[in-house]
Amino acid sequence: MKKLPKAAGKMRGLETFDDAANTLRQLFVQLSNDIAESKAPMVSIPVRTASNTVFDPEREILTLGQRTSERRFNEMSGVRSFMQTALLARAIYEALKHDDHPTIRDLYYYTLHTIEGTDIETFNSQDESNNIFQDIEVLTGLLREQMGIVAESRGAMVGEAVLESKGNRIDCSKFGIGAFNIPSLCDQIRILEIDAEYVLVVEKDAIFQRLNDYEFWRKNKCILITGKGQADRATRRMVRRLNEDWGLPVYVLTDADPYGWYIYSTYRAGSISLSYESYRLACPSAKFLGLSMTDLEKYEIPKDHLIKANDCDVKRAKELLLKDPASGKPRYPWFYDSKRWRQEIKIFLDKRVKAEIESKSSKGFRFLSDVYLPEKIKSKDWIK
Amino acid sequence: MKKLPKAAGKMRGLETFDDAANTLRQLFVQLSNDIAESKAPMVSIPVRTASNTVFDPEREILTLGQRTSERRFNEMSGVRSFMQTALLARAIYEALKHDDHPTIRDLYYYTLHTIEGTDIETFNSQDESNNIFQDIEVLTGLLREQMGIVAESRGAMVGEAVLESKGNRIDCSKFGIGAFNIPSLCDQIRILEIDAEYVLVVEKDAIFQRLNDYEFWRKNKCILITGKGQADRATRRMVRRLNEDWGLPVYVLTDADPYGWYIYSTYRAGSISLSYESYRLACPSAKFLGLSMTDLEKYEIPKDHLIKANDCDVKRAKELLLKDPASGKPRYPWFYDSKRWRQEIKIFLDKRVKAEIESKSSKGFRFLSDVYLPEKIKSKDWIK
Repeated sequence: MKKLPKAAGKMRGLETFDDAANTLRQLFVQLSNDIAESKAPMVSIPVRTASNTVFDPEREILTLGQRTSERRFNEMSGVRSFMQTALLARAIYEALKHDDHPTIRDLYYYTLHTIEGTDIETFNSQDESNNIFQDIEVLTGLLREQMGIVAESRGAMVGEAVLESKGNRIDCSKFGIGAFNIPSLCDQIRILEIDAEYVLVVEKDAIFQRLNDYEFWRKNKCILITGKGQADRATRRMVRRLNEDWGLPVYVLTDADPYGWYIYSTYRAGSISLSYESYRLACPSAKFLGLSMTDLEKYEIPKDHLIKANDCDVKRAKELLLKDPASGKPRYPWFYDSKRWRQEIKIFLDKRVKAEIESKSSKGFRFLSDVYLPEKIKSKDWIK
Repeated sequence: MKKLPKAAGKMRGLETFDDAANTLRQLFVQLSNDIAESKAPMVSIPVRTASNTVFDPEREILTLGQRTSERRFNEMSGVRSFMQTALLARAIYEALKHDDHPTIRDLYYYTLHTIEGTDIETFNSQDESNNIFQDIEVLTGLLREQMGIVAESRGAMVGEAVLESKGNRIDCSKFGIGAFNIPSLCDQIRILEIDAEYVLVVEKDAIFQRLNDYEFWRKNKCILITGKGQADRATRRMVRRLNEDWGLPVYVLTDADPYGWYIYSTYRAGSISLSYESYRLACPSAKFLGLSMTDLEKYEIPKDHLIKANDCDVKRAKELLLKDPASGKPRYPWFYDSKRWRQEIKIFLDKRVKAEIESKSSKGFRFLSDVYLPEKIKSKDWIK
């Protein structure tokens, strides 16, 4: 058993919610000091627009730029959102103090009411409250999970990994055909032991189950993870932790189509709309294992097994090579600046066909697990 | 520990795939006998249309009627689908014989090819192959899971349940904030021990995680299950097994809206499009726990916490009371024939509002787990 993580010093143990509560408390103290000193209370919030989203070439992730906007209590234009920010932050603090882990919807209903003596609602919609919630994330530098806020989870994992949660030892090699359902508050799970050489992330749950059934992870000494389509935050976080804290390389297996590339892209660099999360969720060294467009020829996928690309696929593929009109910089530099990726996208745009992972079954039901995957990994035939 | 299931004699252990292989073998033998006796080979397949879907009032589930259609090898109109049926059945048989558990997509690619000496494809699309696959299910009386065919899975469970898979003992009370991901081939999991008084099925995964975090299942002696929205087959099957084999009552918790009712309806009676599965997947005694429309008044949900119903909601609600034009029978008799359900639907259509489970948080983050749910179950305030 490989019991020691790569960087024990850096390894995240169980994060304490006390840290998050203290950060919020400091915010409240700052605001009340402002009031005590007769200054207008103000919060300065990093702007979360696409135009303030930048690619950090050093860390290879999307992140927020420098622009901030100020929200003041004593200005008509800022007072409503200031009130909402303070109200929601207080609710999060109360939840933390009572060891409650609500969802952002719970927070919305918890704080929603008509302001006394008026007919004004604290929030007009969940969208409004979600927006303020994200402001609090960037304002405090605390992601929702660090504040104990639960979201829907979707991912599953198996392999030689021993986890711990609430004093329970969870051995992910002992689930048979089942799997461990990765919870939203993924960082509350401690990773005790890992005995694996890499992480294989599989787009499709059914493929994940089939590989688990063959005990692919045991034969190939890997951790098998699926996000069941576009990955939820907890799955991305688990992948990142296995990479960062345990030094495991990460390979992503998706269908050969722009949607699959987009799924890979999110694991790797994060999403434009939520770029401020990338620093904890993205995994810049993740490699795209396949199916690649070049695989289609190399493995002689029969023509009738290919699927005609639709307009949406073509549009998506072209987007990956776009430049931002304002800055002139590529929108997805990890695609744009990569020769291999440009080649992949070109083949796709020339041939306008895509293929599913399952097309590998034309060569037999075990071709994927016994030939394709081991061959690709052994020959390092991936795209970075 | 309540170690003995309700009906040990009836309890399903691990189903053997040999039974499925033998059933398919008998089909092949019958067809080759026909040929040996110079009879035109023929298969007789129950019709899977809505008009041949009937409600079985005794078992309280949707099921297929008596109509069948014949598919003959020596008739122009039947030869293509006859060929497809035989081809796909053979592929399933081969997979069973080699202990492979493909998906229906794998089967499609495995069997897809140009017929030698022609330019005819065995299948023109996955839809065509999926359709034939369902024909094989009703023809043989074997559901896909009984033939070892894997589908996407989504559900998760926790509680005092000990399962077994591939020799591993899986204790569902020892996952901390995580959960057991219910695999597609749910019947391959043995249920060894149960120590619980009921099953609580939760529509939303985030609510499931929150209840798990509070260890609701331990305090209330229940098994907690989520299908993460509209349930997948494996989750429904697990609920059914806990109900049928272990005698646990089943309560379903959803949002107060027609979509939530539909989710309950699928757990309870199955779906019209796949009525032939109900006999193994539906759970006719499942009760709707809430949120009910009457709850909205009883628990004084503030008006601003209600959501205006949209046209789609209203259409769905009206559909639940429709009669089939041909037979004159109600389409969803479990709604139509229930006074309580008719009242619920009437309140909804009068007020045109809906509510989310999370609206309970207006009374505090633990109101749902500490007050609402225990109160509803204790006072038997559910809808059947």
